[in-house]
Amino acid sequence: MNPILVEVMRGGTVESAHRGALAVLDADGACVAAIGDIERPIFPRSAVKVLQALPLVESGAADQLGLSHAELAVTCASHNGEPAHTQVVAGMLAKAGLDRDALECGAHWPYLDTATRELARAGREPDALNNNCSGKHAGFLCLACAMAGTARVRDYARGYVAADHPVMREVTAALQAATGFDLAGAARGTDGCSIPTYAIPLRCLALAFARVGTGNGLREGHARAAKRLREAVAEAPFMVAGTGRFATRVMQRFGERVFCKGGAEGVYCAALPERGLGVAIKIDDGNNARAAEVVMAAAIEALVRLDDHDMEFMRELSAPVLRNWRGIGVGALRASDALRRALA
Amino acid sequence: MNPILVEVMRGGTVESAHRGALAVLDADGACVAAIGDIERPIFPRSAVKVLQALPLVESGAADQLGLSHAELAVTCASHNGEPAHTQVVAGMLAKAGLDRDALECGAHWPYLDTATRELARAGREPDALNNNCSGKHAGFLCLACAMAGTARVRDYARGYVAADHPVMREVTAALQAATGFDLAGAARGTDGCSIPTYAIPLRCLALAFARVGTGNGLREGHARAAKRLREAVAEAPFMVAGTGRFATRVMQRFGERVFCKGGAEGVYCAALPERGLGVAIKIDDGNNARAAEVVMAAAIEALVRLDDHDMEFMRELSAPVLRNWRGIGVGALRASDALRRALA
Repeated sequence: MNPILVEVMRGGTVESAHRGALAVLDADGACVAAIGDIERPIFPRSAVKVLQALPLVESGAADQLGLSHAELAVTCASHNGEPAHTQVVAGMLAKAGLDRDALECGAHWPYLDTATRELARAGREPDALNNNCSGKHAGFLCLACAMAGTARVRDYARGYVAADHPVMREVTAALQAATGFDLAGAARGTDGCSIPTYAIPLRCLALAFARVGTGNGLREGHARAAKRLREAVAEAPFMVAGTGRFATRVMQRFGERVFCKGGAEGVYCAALPERGLGVAIKIDDGNNARAAEVVMAAAIEALVRLDDHDMEFMRELSAPVLRNWRGIGVGALRASDALRRALA
Repeated sequence: MNPILVEVMRGGTVESAHRGALAVLDADGACVAAIGDIERPIFPRSAVKVLQALPLVESGAADQLGLSHAELAVTCASHNGEPAHTQVVAGMLAKAGLDRDALECGAHWPYLDTATRELARAGREPDALNNNCSGKHAGFLCLACAMAGTARVRDYARGYVAADHPVMREVTAALQAATGFDLAGAARGTDGCSIPTYAIPLRCLALAFARVGTGNGLREGHARAAKRLREAVAEAPFMVAGTGRFATRVMQRFGERVFCKGGAEGVYCAALPERGLGVAIKIDDGNNARAAEVVMAAAIEALVRLDDHDMEFMRELSAPVLRNWRGIGVGALRASDALRRALA
């Protein structure tokens, strides 16, 4: 039974609460902080996109196609589907000799409500470029391009979302190498964007992110790829999420000091390179915006050296005020005492 | 510590889970089924709109203004903000000599995404009529009209959302009478639409809904008002929620056999008149669509006499399949064994 990590206050009353678990490890596998069950395998969903992008760089595909910081950053993204995102993804696909028809992630209206309304106002419908995972999928297609050559890529890549496709086998192998967890024996589900997701313990996910932040424990090709991806995201943090989003706001402020990425169903992972630590969070009930993010904010407050301005910036993320439709403050989110103690 | 009531399955794995409590009482106060803590006060939010509408009918305001079934139904609603809803609310306000400027609920884009995109396509912005609570607020303003007369209503009603306004005092008194819970001593918060919300135990909420379904235990004016509101909602279930929504779908099928209404933060209440029972649910983490609704569906399956077609209909609500962006079935929601046992 995991403890309460986040409380939702209305007036002076706890109206709702979110339980979950958090692991903080260094790259040697030492557990620096933990709360809740960090051994139970959980689906990391989109939180591990940076691990799934390692083969794109290690294979040389990113160099061959001359991928920019923005393009590498969007391969690690669950983006808002804003025009800036869809344009970058379309550009990547063009470099691989492909277009949006090659994407197998499906289409959905942009995450960002103003972007959705702009599309609607223009009388348009969303396509696969607007899918929050389109950058990751474009990265898979660029990897396919390196594996098969530009001439053959369209045929070769078809069905790339399947677990046994050569592209996805590369991606899964990188995930296994970084986490050190045997994925052949892991529970498997199908993700929102149709690729497999494997259940992995928070302990292994935190370890993987400590490795991503330091390079320690990764093979040389992965270590170099992780560094390049982190630098790309620090250069183009808007690409990873977008307007108003937690990951974008945090990485716009902290640059390479924090790499963080959420996943559906209340998952959040981070690499804190200057501390040599990795963080992995799962909220039991699957809540992202008001639970996993508040826990990650509390972890950053506790684990990263912050000045007063940084603390003020973080407080908006770790203890956001809840406002009603007239803008009246009606409550707030807060990290539980148990979580604060675990991070102290 | 409340038990798990709903599990979120991805493939064969429990990916996330929702804890909570449920109370089923008859109008004499006998507890027929319960799971979790039903004594802890919780904010019922919009689930008690039918109780808050009792003074509108009992006062004679509904008769004086000639309110229709659709208009009475929308006073009990958390509606989608579709054109059918906003038109009915605008009509009610006109009967009271008012317009949308008198509403103090604030504005937001319609709950229904297609309605939002239609507004955007038309180059329009939402107003207070689109607020999911606009019908309840129109009901408060119609009550104010009966209390102050049409000539004075605009001035009299100003500030009606405040706890000490004469209109809100009537509304709160009805809530207290129906639940039998002392609201003067209760924790109070401000709701999304700016009116007060009072923390009330699930036991008292279930009792209130058993009373609403049977009239037993209510004073005569409230009993008659409850019957009229239930009939109105059964005649116009679209008004209570709208396209695709749980409450609308259930009440379109079952008519007066089931009255059900959700509230923000994972609350759901129901009256089951033919069984003489009231149901009240709170999900700890505040999840509505995939937790409170699944629990309510399981309660209806267990407590209402259903034929095979009804069972098939309910299965879509009690065990919905989760599909990804390409429409592939990736999992399902399910009521926990503990919940099924409690309802058996």
